[in-house]
Amino acid sequence: MPRYAFLIEYFGAPFNGWQRQDGQPTVQQAIEEALGKIEPAEPRIAAAGRTDTGVHATGQVAHADLTRPWTPYRLQEAVNYHLKPHPVAVTACALVDEDFHARFSARERRYTFRVVSRRAPVVIDAGRVWQVRQPLDLEAMRQGAAALIGTHDFTTFRATLCQAKSPVKSLDEISIEDCDYPAGREFRFHLRARSFLHNQVRSIVGTLERVGAGAWSPERVADALAARDRAACGPVSPPQGLSLTGVGYPSDPFNR
Amino acid sequence: MPRYAFLIEYFGAPFNGWQRQDGQPTVQQAIEEALGKIEPAEPRIAAAGRTDTGVHATGQVAHADLTRPWTPYRLQEAVNYHLKPHPVAVTACALVDEDFHARFSARERRYTFRVVSRRAPVVIDAGRVWQVRQPLDLEAMRQGAAALIGTHDFTTFRATLCQAKSPVKSLDEISIEDCDYPAGREFRFHLRARSFLHNQVRSIVGTLERVGAGAWSPERVADALAARDRAACGPVSPPQGLSLTGVGYPSDPFNR
Repeated sequence: MPRYAFLIEYFGAPFNGWQRQDGQPTVQQAIEEALGKIEPAEPRIAAAGRTDTGVHATGQVAHADLTRPWTPYRLQEAVNYHLKPHPVAVTACALVDEDFHARFSARERRYTFRVVSRRAPVVIDAGRVWQVRQPLDLEAMRQGAAALIGTHDFTTFRATLCQAKSPVKSLDEISIEDCDYPAGREFRFHLRARSFLHNQVRSIVGTLERVGAGAWSPERVADALAARDRAACGPVSPPQGLSLTGVGYPSDPFNR
Repeated sequence: MPRYAFLIEYFGAPFNGWQRQDGQPTVQQAIEEALGKIEPAEPRIAAAGRTDTGVHATGQVAHADLTRPWTPYRLQEAVNYHLKPHPVAVTACALVDEDFHARFSARERRYTFRVVSRRAPVVIDAGRVWQVRQPLDLEAMRQGAAALIGTHDFTTFRATLCQAKSPVKSLDEISIEDCDYPAGREFRFHLRARSFLHNQVRSIVGTLERVGAGAWSPERVADALAARDRAACGPVSPPQGLSLTGVGYPSDPFNR
């Protein structure tokens, strides 16, 4: 059976996350049902990142084994046709080797979290950013973030229900981009690692927001990390600012 | 009666444009009804730009006369409270002189039109950009746009139902920003003029898209302008990529 990789974009608000669950709309189910329209049976798909409820993606990667060969472009078009009206789209498609696995072959995940600081309600980007009402101190957040870069036990920044075997992860990047925003200011947090723990990005961003607001000193981030205690974490940010923007493989399946 | 200026943001999709119409939801009505909750009678408001159905704003300006004085910040908060759940927000508010008029005092309007070129459906930015399926030639569009800068008779780029007394307008800027977009490319058209004719921005962007797609030569834009004939215009673009981003006054009422 030929194996295909899919580059996938979705708006997370209407979904209970990526992973299939009985009786709940999920992104995985939407795509599997679309593939089921062009295959004799509904294929299963595996994704690089199992995003949570309300989290978006512009660069999710998944793979599926199909019963017959397709021109990748025609396959992309057919799946997109059957995905309507779900806010999910296949933005690239490629035939891959049978040993390619969207999750296990991945060497890097990239996430972006958008935080908008302004007093008036955000309306055009509603559901796409986390809005906070108070100003945020960029330099303090950068200082706090620096303590998290590298290989650490991230127990503090991990959901209690996280199923990863080890809490030790290597965080290769946290950068905070400062963007103009009408009547406010936007901070884009860019995080990059081989893999992340459950809720790790949202736990980190929620904690750094406390630093930006002045409620936490930047030094307290290093202390929280060293505590290796979930209770030392700041509040977990809401999901709607988060997007899985890319997945890295030893060689790019989409030849970009 | 004290006069207040409001800086206003809205998502245009659910509205039949700015201007009040019986039996149709409009942005003007949403704001007047919100003001009616804090005033003995519903005040009328006047806006700098009467945007069409589906057009957004991040920098609309309007004014209203109220029966009693307010701290501008408290007024902004009260109006935003009563605007819910409409996707409309007051992002700044100021007490202004009685001779300030949001429409007639304005010296400049700025619009941005977002065009995304990619094959796969746009889902996260649905309703916020105009998606075209074919690649667009940026340099050709810039060449076509250059012919429109300056003072001209814009009859070609004006809706037949436009009520302006004269078709002569001075277009001070059309720049096209080239932006990254996942699995595609985004072009942001920035237009600036003292005032615009009805449908002028959408007529210009729709025509330049034809140039970018290679269906029109860049030179044909100058010919179309010189024809002073509505029939010489390219197709009018859809509204959802368009946003009124700012209005200029002799002195900024919001002291930004």
